[in-house]
Amino acid sequence: MTEIDAAILLADLALIIVVARAVGRLAKALGQPSVIGEIVAGVLLGPTLLHGAVADTLFPGEVRPYLTALANLGLVLFMFVVGLEFDFGRLRGSGRVAGATVVGSTLVPFGLGLLLAWFLIRDYAPADRTAFVLFIGVAVSVTAFPVLARILDDRGMNGTWLGAMALSTAAICDLAAWTALAGIQALAGVQGQEHWTVLLMVPYALVLITCVRPLLKRVLDRQGPEGLTSPGGFVLVVAGALASAAVTQLFGLHFVIGAFLFGLVMPRPRRADVREALLHRTRYTTGLLLPVYFIVAGLKVDLSRIGSSGLLQLGMIMLVAVTGKFAGTWVAARSQGIPSRGAAVLATLMNTRGLTELIALSIGLEAGLINERLYSLFVLMAVVTTAMTGPLLRWLMGGGTGTRAQLEPEVLVPSAQSGEARWKVR
Amino acid sequence: MTEIDAAILLADLALIIVVARAVGRLAKALGQPSVIGEIVAGVLLGPTLLHGAVADTLFPGEVRPYLTALANLGLVLFMFVVGLEFDFGRLRGSGRVAGATVVGSTLVPFGLGLLLAWFLIRDYAPADRTAFVLFIGVAVSVTAFPVLARILDDRGMNGTWLGAMALSTAAICDLAAWTALAGIQALAGVQGQEHWTVLLMVPYALVLITCVRPLLKRVLDRQGPEGLTSPGGFVLVVAGALASAAVTQLFGLHFVIGAFLFGLVMPRPRRADVREALLHRTRYTTGLLLPVYFIVAGLKVDLSRIGSSGLLQLGMIMLVAVTGKFAGTWVAARSQGIPSRGAAVLATLMNTRGLTELIALSIGLEAGLINERLYSLFVLMAVVTTAMTGPLLRWLMGGGTGTRAQLEPEVLVPSAQSGEARWKVR
Repeated sequence: MTEIDAAILLADLALIIVVARAVGRLAKALGQPSVIGEIVAGVLLGPTLLHGAVADTLFPGEVRPYLTALANLGLVLFMFVVGLEFDFGRLRGSGRVAGATVVGSTLVPFGLGLLLAWFLIRDYAPADRTAFVLFIGVAVSVTAFPVLARILDDRGMNGTWLGAMALSTAAICDLAAWTALAGIQALAGVQGQEHWTVLLMVPYALVLITCVRPLLKRVLDRQGPEGLTSPGGFVLVVAGALASAAVTQLFGLHFVIGAFLFGLVMPRPRRADVREALLHRTRYTTGLLLPVYFIVAGLKVDLSRIGSSGLLQLGMIMLVAVTGKFAGTWVAARSQGIPSRGAAVLATLMNTRGLTELIALSIGLEAGLINERLYSLFVLMAVVTTAMTGPLLRWLMGGGTGTRAQLEPEVLVPSAQSGEARWKVR
Repeated sequence: MTEIDAAILLADLALIIVVARAVGRLAKALGQPSVIGEIVAGVLLGPTLLHGAVADTLFPGEVRPYLTALANLGLVLFMFVVGLEFDFGRLRGSGRVAGATVVGSTLVPFGLGLLLAWFLIRDYAPADRTAFVLFIGVAVSVTAFPVLARILDDRGMNGTWLGAMALSTAAICDLAAWTALAGIQALAGVQGQEHWTVLLMVPYALVLITCVRPLLKRVLDRQGPEGLTSPGGFVLVVAGALASAAVTQLFGLHFVIGAFLFGLVMPRPRRADVREALLHRTRYTTGLLLPVYFIVAGLKVDLSRIGSSGLLQLGMIMLVAVTGKFAGTWVAARSQGIPSRGAAVLATLMNTRGLTELIALSIGLEAGLINERLYSLFVLMAVVTTAMTGPLLRWLMGGGTGTRAQLEPEVLVPSAQSGEARWKVR
């Protein structure tokens, strides 16, 4: 790395942090999650405009790998937190309703996605047809758990029954998506060579659950109530997430899966303030590094050579993704007695793809399952489906709180009397 | 960057964080600052042992540049904080005593360093003899302001007159060292080519002071009392430090100088809690990335081929560095009426080289002023002089607080009555 490259890297980081902040605020002013702004900024800085001249000047090829390395670091910490925030406790008691919603919300778009894949396969002639078809199926079925959590938080819906239901369902969808992606990577790998190593993930996950988790619990318990947030505990946690990410990558899966898995098996801090303190500590590092990920993801999008066939494909992708998610979720929710408008709110929430979709697409691109053109189209779909959530919710909920009664199925709300105060209507 | 390299990078980061934490705690148990442990760990992992087999396996050449890039990022944030912690207010009222101590504490070792350079020049035959001689002079005169601040804090000496005097003197020494290094880089550069650009640092510094500082002040004032620590303020501050580092590097100086300068011109938050909150926010990122810097710095040290001529040179370097710092500081302090033992404590503190020396040496190595052999010898000197501070202080101060009266010159202590409560004996 020359001195000039080192200087450009530092300048790029400064630029990315400032641009991400500016477009993030702009997005928020427009009622959108900030991640939308960051991805769009990446696309605008990328090869789509001015034949990539801006992208090549600001982010020269020599510096890109370093930006990617920094983005990866941010992503590892972020995915670890996503795993850590996965609340198994919340799944209890949601039972039949959540189960039905998950099935409808994943299987319907997945099925339609398989059909979409057969439509796309002529144009893209993938090396591994089975993996391609399955990947497209997963790519349209993804729901962004982290973005959803933030949207619900922004709207004060976290304590509502619908909010809790959406979060539980999205969490299971996330888990299903990562498992499916791991499976597809294994499948694609096995037909390559030397990729039997992905099978090592099974014993690895068992070791994490049966050995690492109790061990971590004991170490963190010994460090007192702050456990996770003591300097030693924090180092242990971050190093564990990094190491787990590395191991997973060495086994042939994407490293985000390892970081997520490590967050999943982490012993949960019992006190909410300890949990908050831990998230707080990782937030400053991810806050600086995660925008790098989005900008880099946006830089890879090239919409300049999409053409009319691309527009048709984009239309098909949008149609399948939105219809599949909406119809699947709505029908499943209605079948469980959720009122029509409440089911529509749930369907709107599940249609949020954001971040998770983006990571899934990067995995597909890096594994050679899709090419840059299809990647670009799917990123566009992810941005549009995430951007529609806010306006749709505003429209459905009418802005007032008086409509809440219309949305929430009184008969289904587990009340404090039944011991599940968590889902009580506030 | 291949997938395997990405995995190794993540694993290296996990390894570095854990090793740094472990050796840091070990160092603390031995009464040493943790930075000592981290450098030594780097040396032990480096090419000195086992012909570098361990270093090449754990940190392969393909991954090193990425580690360096991450270390640089940590260093930028760290040097920004060092600049920000520079308290101009503390210099007021210290007047004559601090001035004399600075002169003695820098000029005596610098003069002896010039002689040392003439002894070393035969063996090392540098391309640029003047720059080499001046660099050696600076390299033996450095005092580590940040490490010193931490040592004083650990011993509860921050509120004492001697502690404040040591901090003020070290801060001016630091400023002098960075200015001198910038000058030497300019000198070395001018004899190269295209390096007239370092002259741009003068207008750049003026712009920072006359335009950027008032502008930042206005922006941060408008953001309310938390200014610097609001999300927007934090982004602005970090991006500013990164950009300033990049600009300085593009001008041909080392980027740490730009980060330090930006910290120096930052408007100071008036409230101590705001300042603490800002430091707190950068600390988690630097806490994860700065150990990478130390380990990478240690990896470059190769003591396996030092030989007997190297040992002689090491002896000379140690002699000049320690004698120069001790004698210079002691005589200067005595001349200002500080009691003998107090002067010795001050001299011991000023002999702490730690981190600042390491950064200066890296600059020298990267600029081609010194080679890897001389770099290794000077790193050893920095480790030893930093390690001697703790034991020497314990010996001089006798462990008890009763000796404080012996150390502090009552007649010189500015009391609360004279309006300078800061230096009152606690």
